[in-house]
Amino acid sequence: MDRIKLKIPDAPQTADQRTRVGDIALELFLKHGYDATPMSLIAKEAGLTKAGIYHHFESKEDLLYFAHKRHIEGLLLPMLDATASEADPGKRVEKFVREYARLLTRYPFLQVLINETKRLSPERRQEIQNAWRMGLHLVRNSIIELQQAGRCPADLNPAYAAFAAIGMCSWICNWFDPDRPESGENVAQTMVQIFLHGLCG
Amino acid sequence: MDRIKLKIPDAPQTADQRTRVGDIALELFLKHGYDATPMSLIAKEAGLTKAGIYHHFESKEDLLYFAHKRHIEGLLLPMLDATASEADPGKRVEKFVREYARLLTRYPFLQVLINETKRLSPERRQEIQNAWRMGLHLVRNSIIELQQAGRCPADLNPAYAAFAAIGMCSWICNWFDPDRPESGENVAQTMVQIFLHGLCG
Repeated sequence: MDRIKLKIPDAPQTADQRTRVGDIALELFLKHGYDATPMSLIAKEAGLTKAGIYHHFESKEDLLYFAHKRHIEGLLLPMLDATASEADPGKRVEKFVREYARLLTRYPFLQVLINETKRLSPERRQEIQNAWRMGLHLVRNSIIELQQAGRCPADLNPAYAAFAAIGMCSWICNWFDPDRPESGENVAQTMVQIFLHGLCG
Repeated sequence: MDRIKLKIPDAPQTADQRTRVGDIALELFLKHGYDATPMSLIAKEAGLTKAGIYHHFESKEDLLYFAHKRHIEGLLLPMLDATASEADPGKRVEKFVREYARLLTRYPFLQVLINETKRLSPERRQEIQNAWRMGLHLVRNSIIELQQAGRCPADLNPAYAAFAAIGMCSWICNWFDPDRPESGENVAQTMVQIFLHGLCG
């Protein structure tokens, strides 16, 4: 059946419009939770009709995927690239922990992406998880390099240690107060100190 | 209006029955997610009618609260008591990290409790969060003791460092494979090593 083509005045027509709606959605997910945020509320906050929002995002999951992908490409991958270019494995690990911790103190909405990855469809979840895992592999492989150079205990499990780094940083979004952004540097420095040298190092 | 009193043959009558239903619910929440697990499924898996399950739990949130409280009292608080009784602050921190990491490798359902605390009503959430925070305070206060004794850098923020310990351990439930329980000890030892001595300590 042919659908009657109506001109929808406020339909998001451009990539910029999608980006804007994605940002509004993430703020709402952060505030109310993913489940408690209906598409109608996102449309309202974006100044769109419900038809307008569905013109570009076929579902809430679609919107979550779009926002996730955008911030992986805009925040996570550039950070990983900059980190990977560090030649010394010790400095590379330090840079990763510092920069990842900084991201989490600066962009509270990362909490939504981390906690709601499970809401994506299986294929998309796999794609997104593969991107996040790049950070894990970067740290794990750097630790193996350090072990081969005799700079790190050989009996330490490099994967578990890498998960410790990811975990202590990812957890930041569960407690950090985004209204005190000035404390972000101290938080990042604490994570570096603990991961590299330990509490009493 | 008076309700007609019917004998509901399979209504959970005892505390044991509540415990049993709570355990079944946690397993289902872990498998399907909290939202995707209706009370009717929990009732079915527990061999109860829907009326039977509502006899003891007025809502899914009530069930989550019951299960949460039970495991805080049965797992978390005994661990905290045993840890707090350690006189030396360094050994106390070590014991906390090891025992908390062990709990997370042994009881995968703790993931549900950690991630779904936000589903509780505000009052109950506060009560539950206060219990979890006892671990944070124990670690933070131990770090302050270590600093006062000159055994730990004075410029380290003790609260951020305590959050690092909680974070690296709490994150375990996001990646640990409960089908390989024998690796739990190595995971706990890695967390202790990293938190106390760092990657290269």
